[in-house]
Amino acid sequence: MNIREELDIRAKHVEEILGQFLPLGIGTQKTIFDAMNYSLLAGGKRIRPILMEESYKMFAQKNGVSTNAINAFMSAMEMIHTYSLVHDDLPAMDNDEYRRGKKTTHAVYGEAMGILAGDALLNYAFETAAEAFDDEEVNVSYLKAYQVLASKAGAHGMIGGQVVDIETENMPAEQVSLARLTYIHQLKTAALLEASLMIGAILGGATPEEVCIMECVGQRVGVAFQIQDDILDVTSTMEVLGKPIGSDEKNNKVTYVTLVGVEKAREEVARLSKEAVELLDELSVNSEFLREVVLYLIHREK
Amino acid sequence: MNIREELDIRAKHVEEILGQFLPLGIGTQKTIFDAMNYSLLAGGKRIRPILMEESYKMFAQKNGVSTNAINAFMSAMEMIHTYSLVHDDLPAMDNDEYRRGKKTTHAVYGEAMGILAGDALLNYAFETAAEAFDDEEVNVSYLKAYQVLASKAGAHGMIGGQVVDIETENMPAEQVSLARLTYIHQLKTAALLEASLMIGAILGGATPEEVCIMECVGQRVGVAFQIQDDILDVTSTMEVLGKPIGSDEKNNKVTYVTLVGVEKAREEVARLSKEAVELLDELSVNSEFLREVVLYLIHREK
Repeated sequence: MNIREELDIRAKHVEEILGQFLPLGIGTQKTIFDAMNYSLLAGGKRIRPILMEESYKMFAQKNGVSTNAINAFMSAMEMIHTYSLVHDDLPAMDNDEYRRGKKTTHAVYGEAMGILAGDALLNYAFETAAEAFDDEEVNVSYLKAYQVLASKAGAHGMIGGQVVDIETENMPAEQVSLARLTYIHQLKTAALLEASLMIGAILGGATPEEVCIMECVGQRVGVAFQIQDDILDVTSTMEVLGKPIGSDEKNNKVTYVTLVGVEKAREEVARLSKEAVELLDELSVNSEFLREVVLYLIHREK
Repeated sequence: MNIREELDIRAKHVEEILGQFLPLGIGTQKTIFDAMNYSLLAGGKRIRPILMEESYKMFAQKNGVSTNAINAFMSAMEMIHTYSLVHDDLPAMDNDEYRRGKKTTHAVYGEAMGILAGDALLNYAFETAAEAFDDEEVNVSYLKAYQVLASKAGAHGMIGGQVVDIETENMPAEQVSLARLTYIHQLKTAALLEASLMIGAILGGATPEEVCIMECVGQRVGVAFQIQDDILDVTSTMEVLGKPIGSDEKNNKVTYVTLVGVEKAREEVARLSKEAVELLDELSVNSEFLREVVLYLIHREK
């Protein structure tokens, strides 16, 4: 299996599903739908829905389960990830005019519309996931999936990580601990990866123990992914990475690498990815693709 | 019944319920919980949860229904209303430093935290409403209530109204139609009032026809409430209103009053409130308090 090609194929598949759940861009408030769709269709790895669908497939196959709800939840997850980028890019936050070579939402539609498009995407994620309720009989697993989505996205999850990240940027460097950085990575990055793997498992009929293992896998992968980001910022070249390197140092940003050095950071990535794979091996399902994805995300060179 | 005193008593009751659902202000991301609670506890009429609870009581009494879920939904509704104010006040939007005599959230916590506190409140509203799923048996009416909450708050509801409002402010005055203003009022103001009355009715076991009537009541009340706002901006005094009058004229804002004059605007308020009361009279439940509230909101002098 060529994992990069496979991920590209699956990203296209995710975009087809997402296309079924895009808000219709009509009506007097057409601008907001345009702005929502602009950001949703601006590309990206679609890694969260890919992980969710794979986790779902693994367990659904084993349990003989099948539900269309997975499509609504995959789309809702990508909407939440997208809104977080739209708001992150705002002038009051990271103030980015470009993302992946395209103008950011507020750069195209203005700052007020950037705020509202983010709000609308977050809200629409919950509208979309709630659509799953219509499809079939009310199923307790939908409600559990819904609660996971909401709690991992919120102040105890992703938003909480964003808050601590901002506050850490304003702290004197010597006060920033490794534990604090790990906490940020766990919330800001890992929370949505955890939720993706958990929701897929829940909808696939996994047991609470299996859902718990998937949460742990997501946590390891999320933290390792961020540390790998920090490493690449130091060791990669602009040609490979496609964006300026050394930006953390330029911004005086405290990272895992500035705190313990590249070698120790690499050891931590290796330790976390080993744990993630061992956790997957504990499951009595075929997790081959997921293992490949974990290793790819962690050992990627860009 | 002294309706103003009764509304004050009920607002305090709402705040007690809300107190049970406030996010705990602990952890590394304490700031976000502080900012969320600051805005949630900054006062207000609490009119949406009051309407929701009354609508619930009316139908629950008739149908012999009882559920704790109403408390979660009342709190979730107030969280959504509050987040919309937090984001409305941001520098890129209305740029207000004060609301009800208190500093706005971004004025206290900074602009980035104002954006994130709004995001977190919107997200927490859906977390809170989803908590209702834990309480009792899964009940189809919760899911319906959830869908109403999500759709009325989003781009087809409140956010959509906010978008059209902003775009209308940038239009030449002669292009602004009465239909456009009504559309803004329906979405920006009426949508959450409709949702409040509908959710109360749904949780109280109302029939689809009864829920539909409550939606229509909310729509009439919401639009009339906004037109009354426009009228007071012209006819009231600063002493009575507690804020500067004539602000619409000063801001060159096109309103119902600037388009058709005070008299015709008053006629429209009277027509809408009569319709709302007639709709309530069609129901075979005791709607006395709700009728009083409708008349108070519409005929209020501040």
